[in-house]
Amino acid sequence: MSIFRAAIIGGGNIADKNHIPALKQLSDQVDIVAICGREQTKARALADKHGIPHAFANTADLYRECSPDLVVICTPNYLHYPQTIEALEHNCHIFCEKPPALTAQDAQKMADLALQKGRVLAYNFQLRQTSEWSLLMRCQTDGLLGDIYHIKAHFLRRRGIPGWGYFTNKSMQGGGALMDLGVHVLDLALCALGYPSPEHVLGNTYDMIGKTGGKGLMGSWHPETFEVEDAAMAYLSFSNKASIMLSSSFALNTQADKDRNLEVFGTKGGVTLFPFSLHTELAGELADIQFPYLEDVDIQLKNTVAFLDACQGKPSNVCTGTQGAILQNVVDRIYQSAAT
Amino acid sequence: MSIFRAAIIGGGNIADKNHIPALKQLSDQVDIVAICGREQTKARALADKHGIPHAFANTADLYRECSPDLVVICTPNYLHYPQTIEALEHNCHIFCEKPPALTAQDAQKMADLALQKGRVLAYNFQLRQTSEWSLLMRCQTDGLLGDIYHIKAHFLRRRGIPGWGYFTNKSMQGGGALMDLGVHVLDLALCALGYPSPEHVLGNTYDMIGKTGGKGLMGSWHPETFEVEDAAMAYLSFSNKASIMLSSSFALNTQADKDRNLEVFGTKGGVTLFPFSLHTELAGELADIQFPYLEDVDIQLKNTVAFLDACQGKPSNVCTGTQGAILQNVVDRIYQSAAT
Amino acid sequence: MSIFRAAIIGGGNIADKNHIPALKQLSDQVDIVAICGREQTKARALADKHGIPHAFANTADLYRECSPDLVVICTPNYLHYPQTIEALEHNCHIFCEKPPALTAQDAQKMADLALQKGRVLAYNFQLRQTSEWSLLMRCQTDGLLGDIYHIKAHFLRRRGIPGWGYFTNKSMQGGGALMDLGVHVLDLALCALGYPSPEHVLGNTYDMIGKTGGKGLMGSWHPETFEVEDAAMAYLSFSNKASIMLSSSFALNTQADKDRNLEVFGTKGGVTLFPFSLHTELAGELADIQFPYLEDVDIQLKNTVAFLDACQGKPSNVCTGTQGAILQNVVDRIYQSAAT
Amino acid sequence: MSIFRAAIIGGGNIADKNHIPALKQLSDQVDIVAICGREQTKARALADKHGIPHAFANTADLYRECSPDLVVICTPNYLHYPQTIEALEHNCHIFCEKPPALTAQDAQKMADLALQKGRVLAYNFQLRQTSEWSLLMRCQTDGLLGDIYHIKAHFLRRRGIPGWGYFTNKSMQGGGALMDLGVHVLDLALCALGYPSPEHVLGNTYDMIGKTGGKGLMGSWHPETFEVEDAAMAYLSFSNKASIMLSSSFALNTQADKDRNLEVFGTKGGVTLFPFSLHTELAGELADIQFPYLEDVDIQLKNTVAFLDACQGKPSNVCTGTQGAILQNVVDRIYQSAAT
Amino acid sequence: MSIFRAAIIGGGNIADKNHIPALKQLSDQVDIVAICGREQTKARALADKHGIPHAFANTADLYRECSPDLVVICTPNYLHYPQTIEALEHNCHIFCEKPPALTAQDAQKMADLALQKGRVLAYNFQLRQTSEWSLLMRCQTDGLLGDIYHIKAHFLRRRGIPGWGYFTNKSMQGGGALMDLGVHVLDLALCALGYPSPEHVLGNTYDMIGKTGGKGLMGSWHPETFEVEDAAMAYLSFSNKASIMLSSSFALNTQADKDRNLEVFGTKGGVTLFPFSLHTELAGELADIQFPYLEDVDIQLKNTVAFLDACQGKPSNVCTGTQGAILQNVVDRIYQSAAT
Amino acid sequence: MSIFRAAIIGGGNIADKNHIPALKQLSDQVDIVAICGREQTKARALADKHGIPHAFANTADLYRECSPDLVVICTPNYLHYPQTIEALEHNCHIFCEKPPALTAQDAQKMADLALQKGRVLAYNFQLRQTSEWSLLMRCQTDGLLGDIYHIKAHFLRRRGIPGWGYFTNKSMQGGGALMDLGVHVLDLALCALGYPSPEHVLGNTYDMIGKTGGKGLMGSWHPETFEVEDAAMAYLSFSNKASIMLSSSFALNTQADKDRNLEVFGTKGGVTLFPFSLHTELAGELADIQFPYLEDVDIQLKNTVAFLDACQGKPSNVCTGTQGAILQNVVDRIYQSAAT
Repeated sequence: MSIFRAAIIGGGNIADKNHIPALKQLSDQVDIVAICGREQTKARALADKHGIPHAFANTADLYRECSPDLVVICTPNYLHYPQTIEALEHNCHIFCEKPPALTAQDAQKMADLALQKGRVLAYNFQLRQTSEWSLLMRCQTDGLLGDIYHIKAHFLRRRGIPGWGYFTNKSMQGGGALMDLGVHVLDLALCALGYPSPEHVLGNTYDMIGKTGGKGLMGSWHPETFEVEDAAMAYLSFSNKASIMLSSSFALNTQADKDRNLEVFGTKGGVTLFPFSLHTELAGELADIQFPYLEDVDIQLKNTVAFLDACQGKPSNVCTGTQGAILQNVVDRIYQSAAT
Repeated sequence: MSIFRAAIIGGGNIADKNHIPALKQLSDQVDIVAICGREQTKARALADKHGIPHAFANTADLYRECSPDLVVICTPNYLHYPQTIEALEHNCHIFCEKPPALTAQDAQKMADLALQKGRVLAYNFQLRQTSEWSLLMRCQTDGLLGDIYHIKAHFLRRRGIPGWGYFTNKSMQGGGALMDLGVHVLDLALCALGYPSPEHVLGNTYDMIGKTGGKGLMGSWHPETFEVEDAAMAYLSFSNKASIMLSSSFALNTQADKDRNLEVFGTKGGVTLFPFSLHTELAGELADIQFPYLEDVDIQLKNTVAFLDACQGKPSNVCTGTQGAILQNVVDRIYQSAAT
Repeated sequence: MSIFRAAIIGGGNIADKNHIPALKQLSDQVDIVAICGREQTKARALADKHGIPHAFANTADLYRECSPDLVVICTPNYLHYPQTIEALEHNCHIFCEKPPALTAQDAQKMADLALQKGRVLAYNFQLRQTSEWSLLMRCQTDGLLGDIYHIKAHFLRRRGIPGWGYFTNKSMQGGGALMDLGVHVLDLALCALGYPSPEHVLGNTYDMIGKTGGKGLMGSWHPETFEVEDAAMAYLSFSNKASIMLSSSFALNTQADKDRNLEVFGTKGGVTLFPFSLHTELAGELADIQFPYLEDVDIQLKNTVAFLDACQGKPSNVCTGTQGAILQNVVDRIYQSAAT
Repeated sequence: MSIFRAAIIGGGNIADKNHIPALKQLSDQVDIVAICGREQTKARALADKHGIPHAFANTADLYRECSPDLVVICTPNYLHYPQTIEALEHNCHIFCEKPPALTAQDAQKMADLALQKGRVLAYNFQLRQTSEWSLLMRCQTDGLLGDIYHIKAHFLRRRGIPGWGYFTNKSMQGGGALMDLGVHVLDLALCALGYPSPEHVLGNTYDMIGKTGGKGLMGSWHPETFEVEDAAMAYLSFSNKASIMLSSSFALNTQADKDRNLEVFGTKGGVTLFPFSLHTELAGELADIQFPYLEDVDIQLKNTVAFLDACQGKPSNVCTGTQGAILQNVVDRIYQSAAT
Repeated sequence: MSIFRAAIIGGGNIADKNHIPALKQLSDQVDIVAICGREQTKARALADKHGIPHAFANTADLYRECSPDLVVICTPNYLHYPQTIEALEHNCHIFCEKPPALTAQDAQKMADLALQKGRVLAYNFQLRQTSEWSLLMRCQTDGLLGDIYHIKAHFLRRRGIPGWGYFTNKSMQGGGALMDLGVHVLDLALCALGYPSPEHVLGNTYDMIGKTGGKGLMGSWHPETFEVEDAAMAYLSFSNKASIMLSSSFALNTQADKDRNLEVFGTKGGVTLFPFSLHTELAGELADIQFPYLEDVDIQLKNTVAFLDACQGKPSNVCTGTQGAILQNVVDRIYQSAAT
Repeated sequence: MSIFRAAIIGGGNIADKNHIPALKQLSDQVDIVAICGREQTKARALADKHGIPHAFANTADLYRECSPDLVVICTPNYLHYPQTIEALEHNCHIFCEKPPALTAQDAQKMADLALQKGRVLAYNFQLRQTSEWSLLMRCQTDGLLGDIYHIKAHFLRRRGIPGWGYFTNKSMQGGGALMDLGVHVLDLALCALGYPSPEHVLGNTYDMIGKTGGKGLMGSWHPETFEVEDAAMAYLSFSNKASIMLSSSFALNTQADKDRNLEVFGTKGGVTLFPFSLHTELAGELADIQFPYLEDVDIQLKNTVAFLDACQGKPSNVCTGTQGAILQNVVDRIYQSAAT
C-alpha cells in the first residue's frame, strides 16, 4: 500500500491538538507533507513543532508545490465550502471539520462534486467513534432495539458561549449553538434512523442571554457583538413517522454546566447514550442493562482511521459528504422555521 | 352566603375518592344533594356510603327532582360534552374532569355556551394546585424568571397502560397517552406562557408497544383491543417565538417507571418543577436554588376550592372553559399533525 | 373439584400467622376443619380466632373425629417425623414445616412412605416462591446462565440467636443455625443444580459466641443452655464437579445484622439473588442487568398454592419429600464432617 | 554492616518495576551487581537502564563471575525450583517470586535445603505488608479478635485472564487462577491461623469461560491454548476446627471487575480487610470500627526490607521457605481434590 | 410495695400525650387518682379519656380531696415554682416539666424545700434516657473518653417558633429558645462534666427574625407579640478549665430545619451524640466507631421510671432539684450577660 | 508606573512556594532584588533557584546594599515585630506573614509606626481571597444577609500537630493552634463584622493530647517538648451585641482530619462558607442557594496583588496593620482569659 500525502489547511487549535497528532500516529498510512495557515510565520512554527516539511500561507502555493493526496480542512466554517471545492479540483480526498458548510446549497455542491470526482469527502463528527455509539449500533444490529421511532437529542451549555474565536460571529460561523454543538447530536440521531431527510421541520432560535450578557463559564463574551443564536430547539418528523426532538444551547438557565446526550426509543428497547444504559424486557421482566467496562477510546484517532479507511475503499462509519448535505439541509430548515 | 347544591355525575373511582371527599370537607360552602350513575344500584350504594340523599340512573331525573346549582362531571371523556351542555341548559355551574372533550369543536361549544349562560365551566387540572406550581407562579410574578421562552413538558410511563377502565378505547376516550396524561403538563406549560394558542404544531403518535403487548406495571392490558396512542410527541411554536416540547406516553422504553415534569426556561431564570429548583444568577454568580420546605397540599381539595371561588366570582386559578377549549384545540392539532 | 379438608397440627406462631391465613385465602380449594395443639385451651382459642370448627389436644382424636384429607405440620422439628408417619398412615397429604426431620434416616422414611402411600409430602421452603427465585429459574430456562457450576449460599445473622422458643435446644431442634437458617438457602442451591446428592461434604460448626453470651438483636439468649451451633460452614462437591459453599450463622462477628443471599455462577451468566442482578455478556460487552420492577409477592400464599397444586397432580415447584430427604442427608453429613 | 551483593534472575516486568526499584532505594544495605535474563541483549539493556554493572544470559556465568550474596528470582514459576536449588548451592539467600514452585514436593525440597545451608529462602507475598494486614495483626495481638475460627478469602477477576505472558500455560505456570491469584489470599489466611497445615481439603477447578472465550478486560486471551483453571474454589478444615473458604478466578460471571478480600471471624471480633473494618462489641453494644487514616505504603519496598531483615537475622514477617512449602502443599491438595 | 397515688397538674398536650400514657404503663407502681386543669370541663374530659377518677379546676381542691403521694406538673413555666412549693407543703414527690422555673432564685428555693421536706423533686429532661446518652455515660465509665474538657451543644431550629401556646410570651415562659430548647442540651452538657456550676458565663440573645416575621415551619407566629429571644448563644467556663459552647434558636438562617446535638471532647476520645459516633485511637491507629444497633427507646417512659425509682430511693439518673437549680442559675447568668 | 524593588526576608518554605512565585508572576509591578536568610549559603541557593540577584545573611547588609521599596517577611513569628520595625525605619512597605506578632502591644506599635511613616503594613491572610469570601462580601453588599449578628468560626485538626518547624515552641511562635490556625478564621469573622474590637472575651486553651502524644497525621511530634496549646476555644461579644464562637485545634478527638469553616448568621440570610451555601427566604419560601461554579483562584497571587494595590494607594482588601493589631489584641485576651 502506498502512503497518502496529506496537507493540513488551517493552523489553529484543532489542527494542532486533534488532527496532526492523530495523523502522526498513523504514519504507516499517511505522511503530513505540508500545512497551510493564514500567516506564514505561524504556519511555519506549527510545522516545525510537528516535524512537517512545508508551510504555506495560501492554498494555491500548497497545491502547486506539494500535490497532496488528501487534505484536512480545519478552518472557520465559512471557508469549508471554497476550500473543499478547491481541494476536489486538485483531486484530493477531504477530511473537513464540522459543520459541513454555511448553507445546505453549498454542502450539496460539495457532495455532488466529490461524487463526480470520485474522491472521498468526509466530516469530522467524532462522537460516532465513542464506545457508546459503537455499542448502540451493535445493539441495533443485534435486534435489541427493534424499530427506532423517537429520539431526544440535546447538547446544552448553561453559560458556555466561548470567549475566544469567531463563535459569536454570524457571517463566519453561519450560526451559534446549533451550528457548533447541535450538529454533533443531530448527526448521531440521523444515523440512528438511517440518515433520512425529514418531512417536516419546526424550530425556534433564541438570543436573549447572549445579547444581555452574564457570568461566562468558558471565558467572557461580548453581548454587543453577539450575532448568533444562544439556543436552538427543533422537532423533526420523518415520512416513516419517526421523530427527533433536538435542543442545543450556548446559554440556557438549566442546571448542568454541560449536558450532551441522546435518548433513543425503539419498539423493543430504549437507550440512554451517556452513560450507556439499555431499557428493555428480558426473561419476561422489565430490565435495565449497564455495560460498566466500555473502553475509553481516542475518538479523534478512530475517526481519522475511519476517514483513511474510506479513502482506501474499505467500510467506514465516517460521516460522508452526502450525509453532510442532508444534515446541513436540516440545519437550514431549522433556521428558516425559526425565522418565520 | 347561601350554600351551593351540588350533584355528582358519574359514580366511578374519581367521584368516590377525589371529588366527593373534597366537597364534603367544604360543607360550609356546598351540599351534595345527589349522585347520578349508570346503574341505579351502584349509584345508590355510593350515595349511602357518603350520606348523599338522592341517587339517579339518568340525568333527566336528577335535574327534574333536585335542581342542583352545580354539577361535577366524572364520566368517561365522550360524555363530557353532552353532559356539560345539558348542565348549562339547567343553569348549573360545572366542574368537569379532564380532558375537556373529544374534540376542539365540542370544547369550544362548551366554553361558548357557558359564557352565554353566565355559568362557570371549569376543568379539574389538579397539578395547578401543587406547591411547586404555586411557587413557579410566584417566581414569575417576582420577576425571578424574566420572559419565559421555552418549556419542556413530559408525562411518561414505561409500561403504564391501565389494565382497567376504558383507557385504550378510542371512541370513548378520544385518545391515549396525550388525552390522559399529556394534557396535565400541557395545561401547565400553556399557563406559564399566558395560555396562548400556538402558531404551529408538529407532532407524532405511536402505538407499537401497546399493540404488541408486554409486561404491565399498572395491570395487564389487551394488545388486540388497544386502539389509542401509547406515546405522543409534539412541538408547539407561538407567535412570540416561545416554544413547548411535549412528550407523553403510556408505554416507552425509558428508564423510570413514571416521570412527570416541566422545565421552564426564562431570560433570567429557569425552573425544574419536581423537585422544584431554580437556576439563575445571584450576587454575580450562577446560582442553584432549592426550597426544601414546600408544603404537602391536598391538591384536589385546593382545586375544588378554586372552582367554588370561581362560582362565587372570586379570583381563582382553576382551568376555565376558554382555556380548556384552547388546550383541546392543541390536542386536536397534534393528532392531525400525527395523522398526516 | 371437591374441596380438601385440612387440619393444622401445631398451634404456634407459624400456624397463626402464616399457614392459616394462606389457607383461608384459598377457601375455594381447601377448608380448615380442625386444629391440634399441645393444650386444648390454647388450640380452642386459636380455632375460634380463625373460625375453625374443631380443636384437639392430641392427633389421635383429630384423625378419629375429623378424617382430614391433608394436614399442615407446624410443630417443633423433633415432631415432624412421627407426625408425618402418623398422617401418612391416615392417608393424608402433608405440608410440613422445615427442616424435614432431625436425621436423614427419618426424612428418607418419610419420603418412602409417602411414595408408597401415594400421598403428597411437601416442605414449606418459602424462598422458592420469591420473585427473585422465579426469575432465576426463568433465566436458567431461557439459557441466560448456561451451565451452573458454583454457588455461594449464605444466611448469616450477627447476633440473631432467638430469645424465645426451642431454637437453642439440641434434642428438640436437632441443630442450630444450619437447621434453622442454612437449610433455606441450601434448598435453593440444590434446586439450581437439579437437586443432586453431593459426592463430598466437608464442614465445621461453631458455638463460642452462643456459649459465651453477648448483646442479642433478637432478644436475649441464655449461654448456659446454648446447646446448638451458632455457625455452620460447609463445602459440597458434586459428581459433575459443581460445588456449593454454604455459610449460616445465628451469631458471627460480621457487619450486617442479617444477610441472606445466593450467588449462582454459570458458564454464560451469573446471578446475585437479592437484589437480583445478572452478570453476563451482551452485544459483545460485559453487561450488568437489573430488574427493577419485580413483584412483591405473598410467598407463603404462593407456596401453599404450590402444595395444593401438587395434591391435585398439577405441576408444582414445592419442595418434595424426596428433595427433603436429600437435603436432610446433606445436613447430616455436614454435622458428621464437623464432628470428626 | 557489610553490604549485600545482589543478583537479579529474570529480566521481565516484575524485576524492572518491582524488585530493582525497591533494592535501589535500599542502597545502604544492598548493591545490585548483576542481572541474568534469557537473552543477553535484553538483560544488558535492563542492566544499563538501572545502572547495574553485569548482565548475563545464564546463571552459571553469573555465579562464576559475580559470586552474589543473595539472588532475587523473578522467572516463570517452573524455574523457581531449579534456580533456588542452584542459588542455595552457591550459598545465596533467595528472595523468590510467588508461588513457591510447581509442586509441594519441590517447595519442600527448597525449604529443606535452605535450612540445611543456613540461608534465607523467602517468597514475595507483598500483601503481608499492606497497612490493613499490619493492623489486623496488631488487632490480633491486642486481643481484639479473640480466637480466629473461620476465614473467607477470595481473589476474583470477572474477565481478567492476562492477554500476555505464560499465564495460561500449564507446564510453565503449574496452574491458573489459584497459582497466580489465590495464593496471595491463601497465604494471608494461613498466617492469620498461625500457618497450620489443614487436616482436610476439598476443592474444585473450572475452565469453561477460559476455553470458550469472551470479552477480556486484561487484554484478549486465546481459548484454544487455555490450559489452566479459570476458577478454583476450596474449603480447608484444620485440626483445631478452624476453616477457610477460598475462592479465586481469572474469569467468573460476577459483578466486580476485580475483588480481593478477606473476612476473618474471631470469637471477640471480626475483620473485613479491604477497606479495613472491625466488627465487635464495645461498651456493651455492637460496634463497627473504621480506621480512616491508614498509611498508603510501598508494599514491595516493605517486603524487600523484610527479606533483608531476615537475611540479617532480624525479626521479619516475610513468607519463609517453610511457610511456602505448607502453602504449596495446600495448592497441590486442592488440585488433587479437584481432579478426583 | 405500696402503689403511689399520683395527680396530674396541667391538662395540656404534654400531660395527655407524654406523662399520662407513661404512668398508665407503670400501673404496678403508680395509680393516677386525679387531674387538675384550668377549666373543670376540659379537665373532666381528659380524665374520662384516660379513666382517671377525679378532675379539679384548682389544686387546693385536689390536695384536700385526694391527698396524692406525688404530682406531675405540666403547666406553663411561670407556675412551676408556686405549684412545686404547694406540692412540697403537701409532702408530695414532684415530677416537674422543664425548665425548672423562671429564675434561679425560685429554682433554688424549690430544691431547698424538697431537701428539707425529704421529698423527691425531679425535672423531666427526657434526652437523658436516649440510648445515645446511656452509651455516652457507659463510654465515660469504661474510660473510653478520658477527661472531658470541651463540649459543643446546640439545639437549633430554622423557623421553628411555635405558632401555638405561650412560647413567645415572656412573663409566662421566662424566655424563648434558651428556656424551651437550649436547656435540654445544656442539661446533658452539665451532666457530662459532673454538673458543676460555671466560673464564667458569657452570652447573647437575639430576636430580629422573631420580631420581623417570616415563613414559619411550626405554624405561623405573630411578630408584634414576640417578646422572647429567637436565639441564644453562650460560652461557659469552669474552674477545672472545661468549657461549653451552647447555641439555641427558635429561628436562625441555618441550613437544617431542626438540629440538636452534642459534641463531647475528652482526652482519650470524642463523641458526636446523634447519630452516636466515637473518635479515638485503637490498635495504634485513629479509629471511628459506630454503634448501628442502638435500641429505640420510649424516653418518656424511661424517665418516668427513673423518677419513680428516685421516689423509692433507688439509684436514678433523673434530673434532681439541685441540678435544676444549677441549670437555672446558668440560664439566669446567660440572660444577665446578654443584657449587659 | 515605576516598578517596586522587593526583598524577601526569611528563606523557608513559605517564601519559596508562596511569596516568590506570586511576585514573579507580577513582574510588571515588582522586581525581587534580594533575599535574606539565616544562612548565607541557603539564601544564595534559593536566590539562584529563582533568579534573584542578591542574597544576604542579615538584614543590615540587605538594607545597606539594596535599598528595597518593600519587604516580604516570612520568618518565624517572634521576628515579625523587630523586622517590621526595622523595615519601617528603612521606609519600606511590608507584607508580613501571619500572625502579626507575639503580643498585642507589639502589633500595635507596628501599626502605629506604619501610619507614622506613611508606609503600607499588611498581613498575609490569604483566605480573604477565596472565591467564597469574595462572594460572601458581595452578598453582604447586595443586602442578601441583612445585619450579621452571630458567627461560628472553626479551624480544627484531629491530629495535625506539625512534625517539623517551630510550631510547638512557645517562645518562637507565641502559641499553638490559635496562633497558627485560629487567626485565619478569626480574621474573616472580624471582617464580616467590620473589624470591631470585642467588648468581652472568654476562652480556654488545652494541651493534653499534645503533651500525651499519639498517632500524628502531619508527621510525628514530641510530647516532651510540646509547649503550646493543642486547642483553643473562645467566645467574643461586641458592643452591638454581635458574637463570635471560635474553635481551633492542632489535636482534638473529632471526626474530620481537617475542618475549616465559618457560619455567618444575618437577619436576612445565613451563609456556610465552605462549600458556600446561602440560607434565606425567597419568593415567600425558605430557600437554600448553591453557587456551583465559583472560580478556583490562586489565593496567594490575589493577596499579593491586593498588597501591591495598597502600596499604590488603590482600594484593597488586604489585612491592614490596624486590623492586625485588633486581631492580635483578641488573641492576647483569649490567652489571658484562658490563664485566669
